[in-house]
Order: sequence, then C-alpha cells, then structure tokens
Amino acid sequence: MNAERLRGTRDFTPEEMRRRHFVESKLREVAGRFNYGEVLFPLFEYTQLFQLKSGEELAGHMYVFEDKSGRSMCLRPEATASVARMFGTSLRNMQKPVKVYYYAPMYRYEEPQKNRYREFWQFGFELIGTNTRESDAEVLLLAVDCLKELGIEHSLELSHLGILRTLLAELGIDESQQDHVIACLDRKNINELKKIVKDNVFFDLMEVRGDKAIEKARGMLKGYPKVVEKLDELSVIASLLDSAKIKYSINLGMARGLAYYTGMIFEIRVLGLGAQNQICGGGRYDNLVKLFSGLDEPAVGFAFGFDRVLDALEMQKIEIPEQEKVVVVAPASMDSREKAFEIAGQLRKKNFRVDLDLMNRKLARVLEYASSIKAKYAIIVGLKELKEGKVVLRDMNRKEQKEVKIQDLEKILIGN
Amino acid sequence: MNAERLRGTRDFTPEEMRRRHFVESKLREVAGRFNYGEVLFPLFEYTQLFQLKSGEELAGHMYVFEDKSGRSMCLRPEATASVARMFGTSLRNMQKPVKVYYYAPMYRYEEPQKNRYREFWQFGFELIGTNTRESDAEVLLLAVDCLKELGIEHSLELSHLGILRTLLAELGIDESQQDHVIACLDRKNINELKKIVKDNVFFDLMEVRGDKAIEKARGMLKGYPKVVEKLDELSVIASLLDSAKIKYSINLGMARGLAYYTGMIFEIRVLGLGAQNQICGGGRYDNLVKLFSGLDEPAVGFAFGFDRVLDALEMQKIEIPEQEKVVVVAPASMDSREKAFEIAGQLRKKNFRVDLDLMNRKLARVLEYASSIKAKYAIIVGLKELKEGKVVLRDMNRKEQKEVKIQDLEKILIGN
Repeated sequence: MNAERLRGTRDFTPEEMRRRHFVESKLREVAGRFNYGEVLFPLFEYTQLFQLKSGEELAGHMYVFEDKSGRSMCLRPEATASVARMFGTSLRNMQKPVKVYYYAPMYRYEEPQKNRYREFWQFGFELIGTNTRESDAEVLLLAVDCLKELGIEHSLELSHLGILRTLLAELGIDESQQDHVIACLDRKNINELKKIVKDNVFFDLMEVRGDKAIEKARGMLKGYPKVVEKLDELSVIASLLDSAKIKYSINLGMARGLAYYTGMIFEIRVLGLGAQNQICGGGRYDNLVKLFSGLDEPAVGFAFGFDRVLDALEMQKIEIPEQEKVVVVAPASMDSREKAFEIAGQLRKKNFRVDLDLMNRKLARVLEYASSIKAKYAIIVGLKELKEGKVVLRDMNRKEQKEVKIQDLEKILIGN
Repeated sequence: MNAERLRGTRDFTPEEMRRRHFVESKLREVAGRFNYGEVLFPLFEYTQLFQLKSGEELAGHMYVFEDKSGRSMCLRPEATASVARMFGTSLRNMQKPVKVYYYAPMYRYEEPQKNRYREFWQFGFELIGTNTRESDAEVLLLAVDCLKELGIEHSLELSHLGILRTLLAELGIDESQQDHVIACLDRKNINELKKIVKDNVFFDLMEVRGDKAIEKARGMLKGYPKVVEKLDELSVIASLLDSAKIKYSINLGMARGLAYYTGMIFEIRVLGLGAQNQICGGGRYDNLVKLFSGLDEPAVGFAFGFDRVLDALEMQKIEIPEQEKVVVVAPASMDSREKAFEIAGQLRKKNFRVDLDLMNRKLARVLEYASSIKAKYAIIVGLKELKEGKVVLRDMNRKEQKEVKIQDLEKILIGN
C-alpha cells in the first residue's frame, strides 16, 4: 500500500518547518512589541458563524459537515468571525481595547493551484473596542513593521469601504445589496455591477487611485456630504501614515472578498509572486462583534497569508539563520557505547544539539552519517583516550581531529 | 445573537496561550538537543489511514465526512499514522534514522468530560528507521528529559507488547485477534478476554509488575523460548535506563489503545490528575511504516497529551516566567499625541513591549488603563517637558514619577 495525501494539502519537512518557525517567531516578536496577546479558537464552529457575513465568495468554498447529532458545522475558512464570536464567549471581561493575534490553519474547498492550497495558514491580528483613526493607523503600522522585521519589500494599498457603502446607501441600495456589489467589485464583475448601480458617480469613484486620490474624490462627491465624511476619515489615516513615514497608495476601487468590512480596508502585495501576490489584507469591521456577541464593539484587524509570506521570503532571497551546529557522539567500538551515551547526555544538559548512533553502526559508518547530516563535529569515544579522561574531537568540515579532555568539551564547542 | 462554541471545544485567552507557548518552547528546546526536526502533516487524511491499525477504540470516535467528490475523509484522531504515511510521501530521502517531532491538534468525537476535549493537542516524537534497544531507550530518555525540563514529577511504566503478541501467537491466536485482545486488555474487559484466551499463563503474565518483574516472568515462560526473547529485549532496555539513572516500573499487564504497537510500550502518569492522569504514552511500531509506505522501516515514538502537561504544571504549582514588562506611552494632551506615537515607535524598534492609547482618552484615563493592564511604566509626553527633550517616566507600582531625557529612556527602562 502506498497511502496518499488528500489533494490541496501538504506535508512540511523539518527544513520547511524551520523556515516557517522562523517567520512565526519574528511575527510573534513584533506582536509582543505592540502588546498584542495570542489567542486560539476551535477548528470548527457552527456553520452559521461563517455564512452570515463572510461573503458569498467564501460560502461556496467551505468544508461543511454534520456532526452525529445532525448539527451543521464547518472548518474555519477564516478567523475574524471566530475572534468576534470568541470576544463574546471568552474575552468580554478584558480591558479594552482588546489586542489579540492568532496563528492557525484555515480550510477552503477550492481548486488547488500554484501557491493556493485547501489547508493554508494565517497569522492575524485583531484590535477590538475602539473606532479611532489612531487604531486604524496602528494596525497598518503593525502590518508594515512585521514585513520590515522580515526584510520583505512590499506595497500597501489603502481604501475605505465606508465611502462606497455610504454612497451606495445614498443611491438607494440596501446593505445586503451593498454586500453583493462589493463582492462583484472584488471579482471585477463590471457587467453585474452595472445591473445594480445606475449612477456614474459610483463608477467614476471606483477609478480613483494614486496621488491626489483624496482631492480627486472630494471633487466628485460635492453632492454627497455624508460620503465626504468617510473620505475625511481616510484622509486622517493617510496623514497618520505620512507622519510615521509609511508609504502607501490609495485605490478607491479596492474591495475585499469578505462582507463584514465597514471602514478602512487595505491590502499588501509583493511584486513577482504571480496571481497570488497579496500577502496581507484587512480592515475595519464595526458590526461583526455585535452580530455574534451582542456587544457593540467596533474592531479592526488583518491577517497575513502565512504561506505567501514564506513564498515572498524565498522569492526575495532573504536568508534565515542557519540551524545550530550538530555534534555527533560516536563510540569507537561497542565497549565505549555506554560512555558515549553518557557524554551525549552531558552535552544535551548544556543545551548542545547532539546526535548519536542508534543503529549499532561501526565508527566509519557513524562518521559518514555525521557528514551526511552536516554535523559540525564528531566526538569519537574510545577506550584508549578515555583512560586519560579524553575523547577525539573531529571537525567534520576541515576533516581535522585532536584529543581533548572531556571536561574541556563544553568550552571548546562553545568557542567554535 | 449570542453565537456559541461547539461542545468539547475551547477558546484560549492570551494568559492561557502564554502558558501553552511556554511549554511548547521548552519541548522544542529538548527536541532540538536530541536533534529532532519539526514536521507537520494535514488536518485530514483518507479515512482508511486511521481505520487500518489505529484500533477499535478510536474507530468509533473519529470525525469522518465526505468531501464534494464523495471520498471519505477524516480529521486526524492521532498522528502516528499520519507520520508513517508522511514518511513514504515526503521523508523517504532523509538520512536514517529519521528523527521528527510535531505539535498539532487532534480530533475525537467523544463525550466531553473533565480534562477531556474533542479538540486536544499532542506534542509527539517519532524515530523511524532503526530497531535497536538503544533507540527504544533514547525515546524514553527524551520523554523523561522533557518532563525534567518542565520540572514535572511523574512516574514511568514500561512493558513490551512483543511479549504478549508472541505468547498469543504461540497459543494459536492470529494477529487481528491479538489486536482485539490488546484492546480488551486496555479496557480491562476481562470477561471478553477469557472468551478468547484459554491459557492461564497469559493471565498470570498480565499480573506481573514491579521489582523483579522480569525474573518473575522468566519463571513463568519456561516453555516459551520465543516469548523469552522479547522479555530479554525488555531487560536490555531496562538496563539502559538503569545506566542513565531513569526510574521506571515494569507492568506486563499494560496495553495501549492503539493497535499498531509491536514492541516496547510505555506510559507516563502524573499523580493527582484524576481519571486522565496519563500525560505521555508511546512505543515501538515496526509494521506501520511499511503498511502505509511500502518501505520496511521499523519505528518507535510517543506523544505528550499537551493539555494534560498543562494540567500537571498547574497542579504541581510550577511557575512560568512572567510576561515581559509593558510600557504605556501617554500623551499629556492632544497636542503631544503625534510625539507620543513617535516615542512609542522608537521604543518598539528597541524591542520594548509598548502600549498606547488608541481611544483618545484623557491622561488620567490612560493611566488607569496602564494600571489595569499591569504596565510597569507609563511615559507621559507633555509639551512643557518636550521643550527640554524630556518626558515624565512614571513607575506604576511605586506611583513615583520623574523627568527623564528622551535619549536616556532606553537605558533607564533596560536597567529597571
């Protein structure tokens, strides 16, 4: 039998996990600096949680199944709905604003393609309990700091869904239709859009981007003071980014695939990653926490597509630290096996990364093994040297060896 | 609406995640010292993977569902079958022995009870490609080192399923019946056992435990030389543990709920944890990798019930390190907000854990917030002090404050 993996899923080897763990640690570090605390929520929730506001695009791609009591449950396709639910269940007594992050796999039943999997990871942040432009700006700063920490070149695109939603409302389009319009916009389905929205000001606004975008939009929106209020919010966020020296570009035609956004939205892209070049996205969702918890708390957040961050690292040839050096302890003969085990144990107590032969191989084969796993040193434990309290330390790269006292091993290994 | 969580699942708050992350880091550290590398495999696999050898107990408690193309898939109820499958798919070219660890959630549809959840975590290790007593001993050492690193008092119980299986074979009981016998033994279902096994030597052997267990068993097994060979294996492992000064007790009546074990098995328990007091278990499974990959590689491994390790830490009142100190930067008035943001940014660049007001609160309220989140310092940024390049540094515990130069902040904060 040759058991197979399911389509769209992956195995991760030790080398790949080392890269992933490096990125994870860096993102945790930045989260800590901004005083965010980690949370985690279940893999599955009642299906309704993700059906209500996660958007029509997602709804068709969820892993939905019934448990033994016939309830419809769903593997999480994204995390913001989970965090909004969790806020009511488990975080309501925390000091506000609540600042949390998570690192967890998500599941979407989509056709697998390059850099797109059915099981993929997100590293995300949520800031719940405040609706200020400062909080919008902070999450943008946080997202950019994460990428700076990793050394990833990127571009940040910014908009505000309040502008679109308010304009659509002014044009007589209700909230559920707005969700549909935004989904169409996200899919660039202009024909469908034209069936719903008849007014040109909407389509003109969609085209506004780049330098002077806010001024341009202001010119178009003379007759819509409520929409201009939202544009002003975007303008304040933009100037907070300017003072923090964060580069961005505005694109009022941007939409996000999820239906719960109400205010500022953003996407971060990495050039050269192909069709899946968006590595981060998020925005403000002021109604979701209330919908799931009954608590009227505004919120803003975002997530990194963790796998794409790794793709970006690779594409931009950013090196990660080497694995710490490995020391292989090798008995010269069967007689010295027990002593070799003992020395391995001592070095492990001192935090060295120690390997040893577990296959009863002869010395020559153990040295081959040490070489093949790229060990930096082999410690050869022989009866002759043991009589003088010594072992043979072999530098595997230089192919040089010398006798050293067992008690000096730690110092010598640290020094090299 | 007050969205609910599904039964048997949990949310983890920042405080709980900090504890979990601490344990995770310690176990990773020990894994590194033994030169194990991390791997990960998908959440779901074809159902067959877990039906074949994971045991009758597990089979009734799996989350099984069909994907859109009608294939039966299953959320992983345990990880060893996944790693055995992964060995063939993704690790077959690695140097042997392959030493890997994983940290991942598992899913079993069981009745939730105290310290028993439908979603629970395992931190496990697998050593593939060698069948020596040294490798059996190494995984035992590794398991015990993990608990020593955490400071958890525990007891280790040891046996060897080869003894039972070989005896059952000698008594004419085939492999699939052996699996059933072992499952009955695990459930302590003696009536069922007596229907299958008629020979008293089996039942006598089951009662052998404690000091001199191996000698006692040897006495009983005079007519079964093939069984004595397996007993000798256990004896060698025991003496390797003796030389490493590891305490253990032998219990030949032990069985494990999983049907794939073939040799040494063990369980680690923590007194006082109640019905769910087993925090670690594992053993040798020499046929599983071949079953799933076609590659005839012996293997041995074990897993910690991660949640129970946390329960043990709590019960034994083992303290984890405090969270690093938090500094709250507070503008004295709206005029100094921008400068406060700038100072927060500078301190974050120096790796301090920095919070600031994102709710446009007045200074007194920000200081209340700082106090409620247990910040160690508040940095009050006011226009008057800024003129002299200074801010006010307030020690939140001592309720003392003094003016300090901005350029000296880092040094003062590190020193305290």
